[in-house]
Amino acid sequence: MNRLQRALDALVERIDTPAPIVLADVMQENIDRMQAFAAQHGLDVRPHVKTHKCVEIGRRQVKAGAVGITAGNVGEAEVFAAAGFDDIFIAYPIWPAGTKGPRIRKLAETTRLRVGADNVAAINALADAMGDDAERLEVVIEVDCGARRSGAAPEDAGALALAARKRGLVPVGVFTYPGHGSAGPDARKGAAEDQDAALITAVRSLSGAGITAEVVSAGSTPTVEFATSSVITEIRPGEYVFNDLNNTRLGACTEDQIALFVAGTVVSDWVSGQVILDVGTKALGREGSPEIGYGAIAGTAAVLSKLNEYHGFLPLPDGDFRPGVGTVLPVVPNHVCPVVVNFEEYIVTDSTGTTLERWPVDARGFLN
Amino acid sequence: MNRLQRALDALVERIDTPAPIVLADVMQENIDRMQAFAAQHGLDVRPHVKTHKCVEIGRRQVKAGAVGITAGNVGEAEVFAAAGFDDIFIAYPIWPAGTKGPRIRKLAETTRLRVGADNVAAINALADAMGDDAERLEVVIEVDCGARRSGAAPEDAGALALAARKRGLVPVGVFTYPGHGSAGPDARKGAAEDQDAALITAVRSLSGAGITAEVVSAGSTPTVEFATSSVITEIRPGEYVFNDLNNTRLGACTEDQIALFVAGTVVSDWVSGQVILDVGTKALGREGSPEIGYGAIAGTAAVLSKLNEYHGFLPLPDGDFRPGVGTVLPVVPNHVCPVVVNFEEYIVTDSTGTTLERWPVDARGFLN
Repeated sequence: MNRLQRALDALVERIDTPAPIVLADVMQENIDRMQAFAAQHGLDVRPHVKTHKCVEIGRRQVKAGAVGITAGNVGEAEVFAAAGFDDIFIAYPIWPAGTKGPRIRKLAETTRLRVGADNVAAINALADAMGDDAERLEVVIEVDCGARRSGAAPEDAGALALAARKRGLVPVGVFTYPGHGSAGPDARKGAAEDQDAALITAVRSLSGAGITAEVVSAGSTPTVEFATSSVITEIRPGEYVFNDLNNTRLGACTEDQIALFVAGTVVSDWVSGQVILDVGTKALGREGSPEIGYGAIAGTAAVLSKLNEYHGFLPLPDGDFRPGVGTVLPVVPNHVCPVVVNFEEYIVTDSTGTTLERWPVDARGFLN
Repeated sequence: MNRLQRALDALVERIDTPAPIVLADVMQENIDRMQAFAAQHGLDVRPHVKTHKCVEIGRRQVKAGAVGITAGNVGEAEVFAAAGFDDIFIAYPIWPAGTKGPRIRKLAETTRLRVGADNVAAINALADAMGDDAERLEVVIEVDCGARRSGAAPEDAGALALAARKRGLVPVGVFTYPGHGSAGPDARKGAAEDQDAALITAVRSLSGAGITAEVVSAGSTPTVEFATSSVITEIRPGEYVFNDLNNTRLGACTEDQIALFVAGTVVSDWVSGQVILDVGTKALGREGSPEIGYGAIAGTAAVLSKLNEYHGFLPLPDGDFRPGVGTVLPVVPNHVCPVVVNFEEYIVTDSTGTTLERWPVDARGFLN
């Protein structure tokens, strides 16, 4: 990870900390690699924008060949639709209360819109919200494959798709999320196999109901390399664009593929063997644990051991790494997604640290 | 905490979830109670705005008698200064690199500005940044009282204050943060005693250097009720304005004094004995642990057991509480500060749930 420190050293006079730094060349390699993997296996890529929430990055993903984008809520979809994205899947079991019903109807006027659903009540509420425009809304039935989160039983997918069709909505397929594949390096392959099994059952269930699954959509960065069965038509990875320590630990990326770090400054060094960085939970989130720490300093063995809101506690390992007050360090997060939403903008450079652009985190505040 | 559910029931048709809901009457009681406590003990209140980051709430604190505000970084100070706040203490050991030096100098032109410092290098950098305007910047020396975070040894405060004076800056006193008072209910009083001891030593150190400590500034919501020694002149609580489960557990507030919750909707109920809410880490932060959970449903025994980014896992305790899909529930966070920064605006109501205003989280993106 020394290229992170090299880029930062070249950049450091021109930025304030804390700040999220993106190495655009590494990011582009990540995008291209995922696209090449998908092409090799005949899969569409529909990247999840929850990770970056940035229009410019979404455009690069589409330019590289993504068929559209995945969003996590209506607000994210609205931001990207307003920026011209016209093929959006909200991969979430939306409950269209409040203003969400009218907002979904409006979105469907200008974009090809797909939403997730895992229960009949939500399907009916979506149909009510769409009114005469029901045929504009495509529904993808969510099934569970072992994450025990949202998603119907795979064998119930057909009945749900029928319920959608009955109300004039357009059932187009099924999706699932193999979240249990993040449990450890050995969990990835098994979770992908569970995903296959659930999707095969769900497709068969749709077929039994007389409905063709045009879309059979799978997650996720940790499991995607195993998501190559013939039943799957698209993948929805998000984190691959930046990568992070969690994915490195899982074996889903290498350290050289990490494209985002947070620049932090040493602000205090009074405690022997420890320095304090200006990077706390309001920059990194509290992602981690006492065991693995809360973020690592690239190119060193140092790991943040504790976070307050604006303070990161960095015990110094034995050796020569003795950063003084004012030193700016690259902090690699455990989990990149909750980092991005803390900032207004990315500092975008490359591995040389010479270029500098600022890209807004466009959808950061749009949570509902 | 049933008044949270009552307010939400009255409000629910008019809001989208997830959303942070503030009960303005409870909040005002919290503000007034803290002010009355301070008046009784002859203390100034300088509330920390990191908790709310909201100009309107800051104004209410000042109207109730606060002498000024505390900020955690230059960006927060800028937002409040632009809104007319003219007495701001950045209680942080600022390192004025990048644009921070010029920004601090500019801030000091229009507001009475105090900044923290715990080392000579930072003091010199601040003086360099201020140039001919050094006498506009007041410096408060940070000392450690046991949190082992930032802050010089209390007996070194005088030397640091002298270093500031030598460079033309204006040393006005000392501050500390008794963060170790959050370790548990029994830790609060001891941490406050450590705080007293450190501040007494620091004041003596300044006095020995021929400098009067006009300001002797203490934290924090969990310890403030014990921060009544004669050496302390001001308190900087932040969380008291909203309160949260952590402060309830510490005995620093009652459940009836909790003024903020996050409204979340049940979006899926496929897993037996569990429902999924649309409230995950991007609404609550990952504040909590497997032991205490990640947020509680007011008025019930139900606690979020796990969070993904947009999903909260809610196991249902034995009993009648069986919320169906579409039910909107009040989630009380463990730690309120990292919640607020995830949202663009507060939904502000009162305990009756009839009023509805929207207040921006003005300083949410200003981290550096």
